[in-house]
Amino acid sequence: MITLHDMTLSGNCHKVRLLLNMLALPYQIQPVNLGGGEQHSPEYLQRNPFGQVPVLDDNGFTIRDSQAILVYLAKRYGGVPWWPDDAYHLAQIAAWLSTAANEIANGPALLRVHHKFGRDIDLARAQQTADKVLGIIDRHLQSQDWLVGDTVSIADIAVYPYLALAPEGGITIGEYTNIIAWFQRIRALPGYVAMPGMWQVQIN
Amino acid sequence: MITLHDMTLSGNCHKVRLLLNMLALPYQIQPVNLGGGEQHSPEYLQRNPFGQVPVLDDNGFTIRDSQAILVYLAKRYGGVPWWPDDAYHLAQIAAWLSTAANEIANGPALLRVHHKFGRDIDLARAQQTADKVLGIIDRHLQSQDWLVGDTVSIADIAVYPYLALAPEGGITIGEYTNIIAWFQRIRALPGYVAMPGMWQVQIN
Repeated sequence: MITLHDMTLSGNCHKVRLLLNMLALPYQIQPVNLGGGEQHSPEYLQRNPFGQVPVLDDNGFTIRDSQAILVYLAKRYGGVPWWPDDAYHLAQIAAWLSTAANEIANGPALLRVHHKFGRDIDLARAQQTADKVLGIIDRHLQSQDWLVGDTVSIADIAVYPYLALAPEGGITIGEYTNIIAWFQRIRALPGYVAMPGMWQVQIN
Repeated sequence: MITLHDMTLSGNCHKVRLLLNMLALPYQIQPVNLGGGEQHSPEYLQRNPFGQVPVLDDNGFTIRDSQAILVYLAKRYGGVPWWPDDAYHLAQIAAWLSTAANEIANGPALLRVHHKFGRDIDLARAQQTADKVLGIIDRHLQSQDWLVGDTVSIADIAVYPYLALAPEGGITIGEYTNIIAWFQRIRALPGYVAMPGMWQVQIN
């Protein structure tokens, strides 16, 4: 059985929930009480010494880090469409996983942590990081439907949640029209699940 | 022919030089003049819209991001020892690639950029990030020789340079005895190359 150590409002957890649902894999949720500090308990640190969600447990195989969990699920259960065998293709996916781990975590995701949860951050730097990465992604999506190749990959899944949640970080995501069009493509995928706070289509 | 768009003092470039040498792959260096702003030129941004080194070009296939380049080289040229086929094994490697892209970049690497190159940073936060990640890695290496499994992988290569360069960021790396022992194992690998500023064994 797959168990996801999860926090409902975490975009990193949402990445994993998205792929689990798109792959139609059965799983159970184990909520982690971040407000109560459960992530710092000795038992949780055994699972993930970084004290973060998500953690995936697949029959005793424990994996930390949302990007790594996507790699695991894609390779183990996704088949070639989700885990291509070509080195160049894989490397392009890996580049976006790095972007998700760094610029997106320290740009849009950090701004959301500040605006939604009140954490003290270097606001100017997070805003600068967010502006840069959103601009790059929007230009990238001008000429292609998906971040890598001609189909959805874990690159899209890793990048999507904190962009769709960007309004909660005070970002006017609607300005990035290619990103918005890509949101619609992701939302049309079988198994797509939303979470509260995600950018919604404006119905006029 | 493989071309590495490179900057000598970049730890991210060093990751790639390490793996190229360990795989005994012929390559040529194309220096990027970061001081002169070459990374912001339209021609360079075509290669990498993030305006960063390294970029690898392998016969016209262009790859940005040091972690992604390691994935490419390991999968394309490394064989199973460098690119295992097992999903759990790959996921553990991917988790450390995320750590390299985030905590190591924003901890030890950022402290070095401040101390060595004078960039203004949030010093307290970078120090806190560095302390946490170095502690986690040191404890992890207490019971195992390599970051993942029982042999060197691109996880070690991705994490090594900015830890070995940590003294240039004002970090007393010698306190982390398991990391120091791991340094020695990496340095004993065929094809290992050093760079200036890396932690040296103290000969008494």
